[in-house]
Amino acid sequence: MILRLAIIGFGNVGQGFARMLLDKREWLLKTKGLDVEIVAISTRSRGSLISNRGLDIERVLDLLANGKSLDEYGDEATECTARQIIDRTIADMMIELTTLNIEDGQPATDHISHALSKGMDVVTANKGPIAFAYHDLRTTSRSMGSRFRFEGTVMDGTPIFSLIEKTLPGCEVIDIRGILNSTSNYVLTAMTNGRSMKDAVMEAQAKGIAEADPTLDLEGWDAAAKITALANVLMDARMTPRDVDRTGIKGITAETMNEAARQDNRIRLVASASRNNDDVVLRVKPESVSSKSPFWSVNGTSSAITIRTDLMGELTILETDPELTQTAYAVFSDMLHVVESIRSGTL
Amino acid sequence: MILRLAIIGFGNVGQGFARMLLDKREWLLKTKGLDVEIVAISTRSRGSLISNRGLDIERVLDLLANGKSLDEYGDEATECTARQIIDRTIADMMIELTTLNIEDGQPATDHISHALSKGMDVVTANKGPIAFAYHDLRTTSRSMGSRFRFEGTVMDGTPIFSLIEKTLPGCEVIDIRGILNSTSNYVLTAMTNGRSMKDAVMEAQAKGIAEADPTLDLEGWDAAAKITALANVLMDARMTPRDVDRTGIKGITAETMNEAARQDNRIRLVASASRNNDDVVLRVKPESVSSKSPFWSVNGTSSAITIRTDLMGELTILETDPELTQTAYAVFSDMLHVVESIRSGTL
Repeated sequence: MILRLAIIGFGNVGQGFARMLLDKREWLLKTKGLDVEIVAISTRSRGSLISNRGLDIERVLDLLANGKSLDEYGDEATECTARQIIDRTIADMMIELTTLNIEDGQPATDHISHALSKGMDVVTANKGPIAFAYHDLRTTSRSMGSRFRFEGTVMDGTPIFSLIEKTLPGCEVIDIRGILNSTSNYVLTAMTNGRSMKDAVMEAQAKGIAEADPTLDLEGWDAAAKITALANVLMDARMTPRDVDRTGIKGITAETMNEAARQDNRIRLVASASRNNDDVVLRVKPESVSSKSPFWSVNGTSSAITIRTDLMGELTILETDPELTQTAYAVFSDMLHVVESIRSGTL
Repeated sequence: MILRLAIIGFGNVGQGFARMLLDKREWLLKTKGLDVEIVAISTRSRGSLISNRGLDIERVLDLLANGKSLDEYGDEATECTARQIIDRTIADMMIELTTLNIEDGQPATDHISHALSKGMDVVTANKGPIAFAYHDLRTTSRSMGSRFRFEGTVMDGTPIFSLIEKTLPGCEVIDIRGILNSTSNYVLTAMTNGRSMKDAVMEAQAKGIAEADPTLDLEGWDAAAKITALANVLMDARMTPRDVDRTGIKGITAETMNEAARQDNRIRLVASASRNNDDVVLRVKPESVSSKSPFWSVNGTSSAITIRTDLMGELTILETDPELTQTAYAVFSDMLHVVESIRSGTL
């Protein structure tokens, strides 16, 4: 089986995913009978490519690694917009990897909706569309018979959506709690070790963990988008990040940390989704976490989710010190799940 | 689709599973189109039943809850052995729930092998067969086209085997570490809180956590069987619990605990499987666990596994305060996975 991909947004995650395809090329052929070709790439500032015969991934990665534009690739270079590329590509699957827009999840939502409505399968690591438009996108994908997956939107490649869907059949999710934002957690961990918030943020920026403008993280917007995505998918909520009762970590002082420590607690930014009669209540706020909690050991850029279900009680999954390659793996595993669905004729 | 079950061994887990079938009967019919019937039950000391028309589960559970033998059920009562029941039943699937035999995994292994070789699908929560004979059983199941699942053998219903199989495609397991035995962990937790080992064991027995003879747990045999099962399935090892470098917790004293506490550590019984060139090395021994470890918060009867893979780095899954119903859920989820395989025509 040949699988043709169009990749919209080709930053670190996209490039990591492309490298994974190269590394696992033989494994994919041998154990999955799968020949994956990239037939289109769209970037915001480094040019775009489209080719029905498949692109030379190594050459693409080399150009980008050397700071060059994809225009230098050759005749496959195109000035098409992402939407035009979706219209013109022969890809079976679109991989959407543009960056998060916390206002409304655009233009990623439009890209995905457009690709699904053309019958393409879609994989994304962008949480915006799941936080803002999951139910509409799911409706489109079901009506078109397209598959739509998004494991990389929460906790990198750690299976969360797949965990519930594929390993916990029949379980109903009662509530979810998570440490979901690595910048906030890195800053809080550093503050536990005596650093000021300002220093901790600068350190996180220097390490490439925090953005130049860390507001989305520190004010809890990133965590809010993630808990909304989780609730929309796993608890059938119909909410957006604006519906989250949200408090960031900006008000946390050394004193707050010390007071918590005196009670053998730590402060963590906890995002939660719980049921209240027929409603789902979403919350992001700093909480005291005791040494008996599985969240106690979630330090630095690590993250964790606790899920309570009716049949299986309380499970926690932790990801320790993730790297970018793990978000790339989310895309890789979603791609394989889609292939499996195609083969078994399910959605 | 009608699915007919024969249940060999019908203690707490089997009865919990049967109750779950009753509770989820409508859900199974409605969302899975699945009508599950129990057509045979074999117990060691409470009689056995066989009926092609399906047994009245509520009546069976009532008899057992009232301390009665299944002989009182009626004409369906039989004196057949488990093996004879497997020969005579029309069941599509055998559920093997007899108790662990740490010497050689029998008679469970024979039951499973026999059922698989007759073309029945098999689900078990008994770790013996996976620790002693996994590769033979897998060979039989593949050659017969039967499905064989065993999620309940390690960490109750927490997805471990399914986690790797279904949510981490393409990942190779590099090593595994786990707190797998609830009795040892309960005892060590109580000792951390100042209790003597003797008192802690008696407390665990009173609460029904530890057996009357807790030797298998305290000497690390139960953890050894579980890590062997994990290594056989997830790392393609061909080992038995006798191949485990095994140290139990019997030598742990209050002094050991205090010394660990002085270094801000706790003692936990850790089972591990790691690669050493082409070999897999299995170990069970008490280890110091620091407050930075995800194992720090694994108290009482909780358990945890950390899995390191090539593509997804280090993941930990924790189960907090499990109950018997969660092992029953393992059987339930395995049953659903088998049905899914049947429907998609995969093994």
